[in-house]
Amino acid sequence: MPCPIARSLERVGAWWSILIIRDALHGFTRFDEFQKSLNIAPNMLTRRLSALLDAGLLQRRRYSKRPRYEYILTEMGRDFRPVIVAMFAWGNRYFAPEGASVLLVDKKTQAAADPVLVDRRSGRPLNERDFVFSVGPAASERTRRRYAVIKEKQFAAQQSSRPVRSSLQGRKRRAS
Amino acid sequence: MPCPIARSLERVGAWWSILIIRDALHGFTRFDEFQKSLNIAPNMLTRRLSALLDAGLLQRRRYSKRPRYEYILTEMGRDFRPVIVAMFAWGNRYFAPEGASVLLVDKKTQAAADPVLVDRRSGRPLNERDFVFSVGPAASERTRRRYAVIKEKQFAAQQSSRPVRSSLQGRKRRAS
Repeated sequence: MPCPIARSLERVGAWWSILIIRDALHGFTRFDEFQKSLNIAPNMLTRRLSALLDAGLLQRRRYSKRPRYEYILTEMGRDFRPVIVAMFAWGNRYFAPEGASVLLVDKKTQAAADPVLVDRRSGRPLNERDFVFSVGPAASERTRRRYAVIKEKQFAAQQSSRPVRSSLQGRKRRAS
Repeated sequence: MPCPIARSLERVGAWWSILIIRDALHGFTRFDEFQKSLNIAPNMLTRRLSALLDAGLLQRRRYSKRPRYEYILTEMGRDFRPVIVAMFAWGNRYFAPEGASVLLVDKKTQAAADPVLVDRRSGRPLNERDFVFSVGPAASERTRRRYAVIKEKQFAAQQSSRPVRSSLQGRKRRAS
């Protein structure tokens, strides 16, 4: 599948994998640290670590004369951090009825950050109203057909969500 | 687990679930649309849709006199979009050697966006150098202990990555 999300999930689609990356971002490196943190069965942890090594998110580093290895995030692995931060923000919003147990804070001031995705150049929030997924230059014929269907759907959804009154395209909410 | 990421993953930890949310954000609503898009076994799709309904990311809406339902994202489901966008950006960066098949574009200008996570108030990028995860007000004793360990680790990692020369903490690789 050419979809970059699908491709990402091929690498990290497993629950455990994402938690291992989270822990690695926290600074955990050793098998027993991950195991203790995640309370995961050793054979499962071995499997997930191997998958992350194969996918290129982790690399091994020897830390003892005996062949003992620790697991370090590669650049690709570290760059997964925004996905973790976005999940963190969503989780805090919906699944922390007792208040936040974990916050993302400014190292210096300890002030809590409120993560939002914006366009790097313009600084504009990447919300659904203004930004849509669309075909890129390398899109296959199949992807182009797929997005042609998606565009139709989105157009139809826009039309049907409009409270049509006197005119066909009338709108209740104008640029709210 | 009080970790909001873990809590998020309890809801969407399955590969298929995230792709279903992606498709729902694209405007797909019906069983056969998801099935065709994902090329997923019907019993698996039924299971994943049920899980997303139970988790509160989707709701059902009757669209025919016969009891036929379509699946609509709830507010919680729509708010998962930044996670999808972050995955998309990461996927495009690392797993699209042939160039981007899919882009996130400005609806009006069709210009491609470059997603980056910033703090909503200050606009500062939420990178590792400046922002860390830390305990929030609702943190349990266990979470506090966990983050105390994490802080030590991060401090140690910072120390060891400093190019100390003449001391015991010297390292071969200097801030490369």
